[in-house]
Amino acid sequence: MELDRRPREACGLLGISQHPDAATLTYFGIYALQHRGQESAGIAVSRDFEIQCRKGMGLVSDVFDRSILEGLKGECAIGHVRYSTTGSSVVLNAQPFVIRHKKKTYAVAHNGNLVNAHLLKNELEETGSIFQTTMDSEVFLHLFVKNLKHGFEQALVKTVSRLEGAFSMVMLTSKGEVIGIKDANSFRPLCLGKLNGNYVLASETCALDLVEAKFVRELDPGEIVIINDEGIKSIQTKKDPTKRSFCIFEFIYFARPDSTFFGKNVYLTRKAHGRRLAQEAPVDADLVMPFPDSGTYAALGYSEASGIPFELGMIRNHYIGRTFIQPTQSMRDFGVRVKLNPIKELLSGKDIIIIEDSIIRGTTVKTRVKALRELGVNRIHLRVSGPPHRFPCHYGIDFSTRGELIAAKMTIEELKEYIGLDSLYYLSIEGLLESMGVERPEDKFCKACFDGCYPVTFDGDLSKDCLEY
Amino acid sequence: MELDRRPREACGLLGISQHPDAATLTYFGIYALQHRGQESAGIAVSRDFEIQCRKGMGLVSDVFDRSILEGLKGECAIGHVRYSTTGSSVVLNAQPFVIRHKKKTYAVAHNGNLVNAHLLKNELEETGSIFQTTMDSEVFLHLFVKNLKHGFEQALVKTVSRLEGAFSMVMLTSKGEVIGIKDANSFRPLCLGKLNGNYVLASETCALDLVEAKFVRELDPGEIVIINDEGIKSIQTKKDPTKRSFCIFEFIYFARPDSTFFGKNVYLTRKAHGRRLAQEAPVDADLVMPFPDSGTYAALGYSEASGIPFELGMIRNHYIGRTFIQPTQSMRDFGVRVKLNPIKELLSGKDIIIIEDSIIRGTTVKTRVKALRELGVNRIHLRVSGPPHRFPCHYGIDFSTRGELIAAKMTIEELKEYIGLDSLYYLSIEGLLESMGVERPEDKFCKACFDGCYPVTFDGDLSKDCLEY
Amino acid sequence: MELDRRPREACGLLGISQHPDAATLTYFGIYALQHRGQESAGIAVSRDFEIQCRKGMGLVSDVFDRSILEGLKGECAIGHVRYSTTGSSVVLNAQPFVIRHKKKTYAVAHNGNLVNAHLLKNELEETGSIFQTTMDSEVFLHLFVKNLKHGFEQALVKTVSRLEGAFSMVMLTSKGEVIGIKDANSFRPLCLGKLNGNYVLASETCALDLVEAKFVRELDPGEIVIINDEGIKSIQTKKDPTKRSFCIFEFIYFARPDSTFFGKNVYLTRKAHGRRLAQEAPVDADLVMPFPDSGTYAALGYSEASGIPFELGMIRNHYIGRTFIQPTQSMRDFGVRVKLNPIKELLSGKDIIIIEDSIIRGTTVKTRVKALRELGVNRIHLRVSGPPHRFPCHYGIDFSTRGELIAAKMTIEELKEYIGLDSLYYLSIEGLLESMGVERPEDKFCKACFDGCYPVTFDGDLSKDCLEY
Amino acid sequence: MELDRRPREACGLLGISQHPDAATLTYFGIYALQHRGQESAGIAVSRDFEIQCRKGMGLVSDVFDRSILEGLKGECAIGHVRYSTTGSSVVLNAQPFVIRHKKKTYAVAHNGNLVNAHLLKNELEETGSIFQTTMDSEVFLHLFVKNLKHGFEQALVKTVSRLEGAFSMVMLTSKGEVIGIKDANSFRPLCLGKLNGNYVLASETCALDLVEAKFVRELDPGEIVIINDEGIKSIQTKKDPTKRSFCIFEFIYFARPDSTFFGKNVYLTRKAHGRRLAQEAPVDADLVMPFPDSGTYAALGYSEASGIPFELGMIRNHYIGRTFIQPTQSMRDFGVRVKLNPIKELLSGKDIIIIEDSIIRGTTVKTRVKALRELGVNRIHLRVSGPPHRFPCHYGIDFSTRGELIAAKMTIEELKEYIGLDSLYYLSIEGLLESMGVERPEDKFCKACFDGCYPVTFDGDLSKDCLEY
Repeated sequence: MELDRRPREACGLLGISQHPDAATLTYFGIYALQHRGQESAGIAVSRDFEIQCRKGMGLVSDVFDRSILEGLKGECAIGHVRYSTTGSSVVLNAQPFVIRHKKKTYAVAHNGNLVNAHLLKNELEETGSIFQTTMDSEVFLHLFVKNLKHGFEQALVKTVSRLEGAFSMVMLTSKGEVIGIKDANSFRPLCLGKLNGNYVLASETCALDLVEAKFVRELDPGEIVIINDEGIKSIQTKKDPTKRSFCIFEFIYFARPDSTFFGKNVYLTRKAHGRRLAQEAPVDADLVMPFPDSGTYAALGYSEASGIPFELGMIRNHYIGRTFIQPTQSMRDFGVRVKLNPIKELLSGKDIIIIEDSIIRGTTVKTRVKALRELGVNRIHLRVSGPPHRFPCHYGIDFSTRGELIAAKMTIEELKEYIGLDSLYYLSIEGLLESMGVERPEDKFCKACFDGCYPVTFDGDLSKDCLEY
Repeated sequence: MELDRRPREACGLLGISQHPDAATLTYFGIYALQHRGQESAGIAVSRDFEIQCRKGMGLVSDVFDRSILEGLKGECAIGHVRYSTTGSSVVLNAQPFVIRHKKKTYAVAHNGNLVNAHLLKNELEETGSIFQTTMDSEVFLHLFVKNLKHGFEQALVKTVSRLEGAFSMVMLTSKGEVIGIKDANSFRPLCLGKLNGNYVLASETCALDLVEAKFVRELDPGEIVIINDEGIKSIQTKKDPTKRSFCIFEFIYFARPDSTFFGKNVYLTRKAHGRRLAQEAPVDADLVMPFPDSGTYAALGYSEASGIPFELGMIRNHYIGRTFIQPTQSMRDFGVRVKLNPIKELLSGKDIIIIEDSIIRGTTVKTRVKALRELGVNRIHLRVSGPPHRFPCHYGIDFSTRGELIAAKMTIEELKEYIGLDSLYYLSIEGLLESMGVERPEDKFCKACFDGCYPVTFDGDLSKDCLEY
Repeated sequence: MELDRRPREACGLLGISQHPDAATLTYFGIYALQHRGQESAGIAVSRDFEIQCRKGMGLVSDVFDRSILEGLKGECAIGHVRYSTTGSSVVLNAQPFVIRHKKKTYAVAHNGNLVNAHLLKNELEETGSIFQTTMDSEVFLHLFVKNLKHGFEQALVKTVSRLEGAFSMVMLTSKGEVIGIKDANSFRPLCLGKLNGNYVLASETCALDLVEAKFVRELDPGEIVIINDEGIKSIQTKKDPTKRSFCIFEFIYFARPDSTFFGKNVYLTRKAHGRRLAQEAPVDADLVMPFPDSGTYAALGYSEASGIPFELGMIRNHYIGRTFIQPTQSMRDFGVRVKLNPIKELLSGKDIIIIEDSIIRGTTVKTRVKALRELGVNRIHLRVSGPPHRFPCHYGIDFSTRGELIAAKMTIEELKEYIGLDSLYYLSIEGLLESMGVERPEDKFCKACFDGCYPVTFDGDLSKDCLEY
Repeated sequence: MELDRRPREACGLLGISQHPDAATLTYFGIYALQHRGQESAGIAVSRDFEIQCRKGMGLVSDVFDRSILEGLKGECAIGHVRYSTTGSSVVLNAQPFVIRHKKKTYAVAHNGNLVNAHLLKNELEETGSIFQTTMDSEVFLHLFVKNLKHGFEQALVKTVSRLEGAFSMVMLTSKGEVIGIKDANSFRPLCLGKLNGNYVLASETCALDLVEAKFVRELDPGEIVIINDEGIKSIQTKKDPTKRSFCIFEFIYFARPDSTFFGKNVYLTRKAHGRRLAQEAPVDADLVMPFPDSGTYAALGYSEASGIPFELGMIRNHYIGRTFIQPTQSMRDFGVRVKLNPIKELLSGKDIIIIEDSIIRGTTVKTRVKALRELGVNRIHLRVSGPPHRFPCHYGIDFSTRGELIAAKMTIEELKEYIGLDSLYYLSIEGLLESMGVERPEDKFCKACFDGCYPVTFDGDLSKDCLEY
């Protein structure tokens, strides 16, 4: 994945119930999920029929310190890290989102993108609803409150049934309930764990690992779980919860390699992609290397299957700050070297294979290949551990227009020339799915960014373009 | 290297002469050297017979922003990043250190540790010198100013001849001279590069790479170079500059893998250590892995020589902040997992080889091994890509007492038991030196931390303990 | 007025229309109104059918700097400074309050307190409204949006007709309209000015002075003014706008002395109170003095009428920060002296008259009188330039329970003994009103805090206690 | 005094010995002296043979908070607030200044200006001293350390005897001694107080008042007091300590009105100046008023002697921040009104007398008079409560060149026209001295800024210009 224009995931979620140290555990949990969003972080806790919420722009460690955490007293909590997809990048849009209604308070944090949010919003505004943010969470809460006349559980069910698109959510009430919600397609991850008898909800298992909770299970598509001091209650809002459209790009790129979804570990899955890639597109070379850290695990698999040595030919600087100063004088390779410095003694005169997990706009990889050429690298072969990105995502990933997807604008051959490669190959969709060893993968994954087959329709639906495979 | 108690290097240095964008280039240079010190950062520039200096606690990107850099006008500059060895951890001890004397101003930044600083200081105080800091730089400048009666160059020469121990320095004068100084043993690195006809001094070549300067050569032991608008002048203060005692731990641990010293690339050298380790201590296993990032390159070499697959069995969290909050409730493996999370699906039931570059106190490695055991790892073999650390360093690395060096207190067998390993092996000193392919290595390296043979004597000299090898 | 427990006014308001430098003018305007609220400050600007809002905790000069103001582009703006009365003290409750509804955006800032807010809120929640803050502004906007089906102007009229209590408001729309609203009793100030042909709304004339706008007139009770690029339109929602209940405490204490309401300058009015006080309660003394700065102007009037010299017998420290550190060791008079230090050489052995504008809890004045006694002051006479505070305010001033009003708990004689005075006298209500020279003052002022005659009823109305005068 | 270009005093000093809460008391003391310097603040404490020092840019309340004070443990302390006169405005020049020498540590804070600092510095540099700051304190400490061979007391005496010019100092040693030093002319204030048996040193008595210490006496000219746990020792370095040259401008302008020097209270002295001014320059008018707060007390005296009513005709905004934003659009009177808003209803059509304590550059007073004219004030008479400033100060006040003193460039008549007054009168030197009731005032005060008679000679001495009076 190119560093300067990474697809940005919506969010990471955490919920925890009945734990004396709920805010601190939530802090650790969202810290473990920091890779899912670095723009804002927030934690809400519930105690004595009140909800306290603290959120701010920046990393978890920027927003929270010990004294803030100590001030967040309560046994139930939800937390959130975010990179905005809808909603602009301001603190107002940080989550959890908290509202008051009839002496009760509710906090919601979500991950994903509703495709019918604007329709719901129009409908709500007709009856006098006002909005302070541009977040889907606010739409959810408006609907939820209007449905409360049907009772709390039915309000949840009826509200969820109106939402279309991708959403995983955690919710906290001032009564101390922690709720987990998953959309009917299970686009975004959310799983359940247990810590000393208490329940934890998390976007990825790596967060369970850090707080030392045991993984119990994924939430089912369309499932709502309500956790309180009496235990957990599951409500299934979908008839056939065995079909799902889990975002396959979580496996390829988003998730932390130490996380596991549906019994498949991400690290091992990426290695499998790499091994398959070596079978589909073998090439002779001196070494195989990633652009760290994307592509690293697929490169290990490629090396394993091909027998070509794995090397870390470019060194990543770990101290990159968020506001890096650009040089005023022209410095050719500055943008490359400030993040990744190639090791000349290793690479000069060599034939190399680079493994990437994806190419979005192609500019960063082009610059890096150029820098490697100037260093004296001989032949440069690029292998991508997923199919070409040709279709925008409408479910929460921000490569949302076809215009910025270079693979939608060029043939593979043109792209090879554009980047300046000796060869370029993308993993096939079949290869991707088969290497994951999933039965009936067509019932399991959303791969619309590769083939245009969108599981949920929306305005300007492109599903007629759905590629055959 | 254990993460919670890493040996801390004194500093990174940069100097640049006659460049219109000197402060910004210096900023990039010390940013590339950030791994050498994260405690404070500083830049001094010279213009119109004045020196301006800005320094502060924290990372380069914390201390400087665009407006600060734009305020630092001048064509000559020096920069510094620091981890304190002598001198306590306060902004007063940040460098460059600036003084005024007779209408002139001098700025100095140094890396290393003088073993006779306290003697020189006593002598200076007898004649009325007063000290504001606990830094060796201040001692240097007091001596230098007293020697100015002999002229500028002779003052440098006479001052350097009084200093004993390890020091590389860059100096800037209000006349716009940039000076590089290396001690007679060349303990600490300092090299010369060229950028569009102008000279650059840097602790490591990775800094030259970033500012796109070409490497020219290392400074010789005891060399002083004076760079001004007329060019460069070298003064040799030592009779036989072919002998040196370069810190071998720079190769094993400190330096960035993309740097090169004396023609030896660090990445390739570490791989060579790993290959030799595989020969000296082969063992059967399913995989070989580092604790990232220390040990990574030696592990690649070990894998290459042994044919055992290389894996990244523990995933590093890249968002570790500097002030991380500890959990109040007991969480067994928190200290391990917050930095490195093991991949259970990869490791469970396996025999593994871990490659580390060093063991100082042994506590972190012990905790990690315990966590791996609990995950279900079968046999755990540890291989260290350097000899045991048994002697403190008096030349600027802060493992300065024998008490905290666990290899000084236990036999290898005891240490194996203490950590909970199935086997433990350290690379031999011969193996270390031979794998580096250096002729007459005994004239080239300081390896006192391994064998107690201190190249420069000091109070309480331990060189009688010098191990035979 | 005692310094440690000052009655806190709700807010200061500013609105400006069609000015190229609207945000900066608003900044100056709310800076001039800073005495009305130091807890938070905010500015909203309108341009290109969007509203941008910036607000934060602290003083105007803490929240805004040049770059923030430069970012607030637009020709129409409203601004606000606040001390909370309802709503807790958090940034969420800072104003202006901004909402979106059907592609339009609205910002509102208000001053005052609705007495029927909770009833309106209950009603709104029944139909599904959700609330994020505890501010009256949010209630106003919910009602307003529901009324928009009647058209913009009627929506304003219908909404205002539902509100009961004290409120002055400024509102900004994304179409660039600036609206000023006053409640039917005109409890809180709001006036109209003109600057180069454009209109300005401000809580006090001192804000018009600073931005060099000319005073035009006060808004009438129940008046709504809508200002846009075509001019100003006034809507009168009340049948008889000649009757009002303007807070008389604005004259006594809140307003800046350089402001003028209804043709009466505050400075001159306070002097008149002081002169009347000298007539009602003459006493022989060496000097008359205020506790600066409260009481200063009434003290000038008292001195003028009595011929007793005016002195500034206690010196105010102007550098009091907001978070002052308390001594750990016992220091008797610390709390007094840190703010006001008495001049012993002036006061020792003297008979003095102190003029205060009000006594709320009585603790500060008691401590100060004690300190003056210890300094050797002979006789101490206290004269208060308003009647005793015996009733809470329900219209936005935060002495809202009778329990904290010492004059509600003690007779004047008891209070004299409690404070330790030689004599104590409060200005009579007749004296207060007559000295202001207002015709039919019973139709002009709210003086409920003195006599319990509340102009607008509310839950737990105390108006049966209304004192005869 | 004009607000935009106030003469800036060097510093405020505080020292305290043997008090368990020394740092906090010092904090309060320098807070009471904040008017003497708002640029930086610092406190040094001594305990266990170590000195800890904390200093920073800004107000006392900006630099210190509770946790910082709690960290400054020790029974002896000195503190300092500063406005720079020599030395540029950077944190490096903040005081106390701390040095180490032969295992001992010394901290010094000073007030004043040495006229032979550059000569002493040249001399010290010849023997190899290096300087890090541009402060006189550093020169003092260099000399002191060189004199330590004569013993501690003699080192103080010999060092003080080398210094020429104005200096009051407090010093702290790591042994816990607190030292107070006054120059032979006693230009700058320093007095001794007692708090529960322990000694306190302070620039002004208002600081003693706040910490509840009792005034004991002024330090004599040339006196050194050494305070330790055994008591106090005084060393007199001057033969005739009855003659002094105390800065008369302390009485007119610098000192807080609640302070007392040599038995003369500042408030009462300023009133006496005003009364004398009324006798020397009577004029018929409706009211007399100051520009607050300068001139306020002299205006009270003028009113008292003339019988013309005292008014506060311009209202000061107390919330002026340090970085106030200027308007981009032209606003005529902005610079005036942002600080002082005139009360039109009081002033329009009136003849007024304004009392100022001094005029330095004349620009502010000119602008204010213009604003008053535009408001409709009729006749404007200005009376200055001191003689014209015609000579620079070389002893620590920063009107240091004749060029910026408008009274050195114009006659009184020209100045009257320039400012736009109906009449202008300065208090005579005789009037100033006689109104203070001091015997032999020629032996008591430095009034060089008025008459050019400099008590201590210096390079470019102007004393030949000494005016007869």
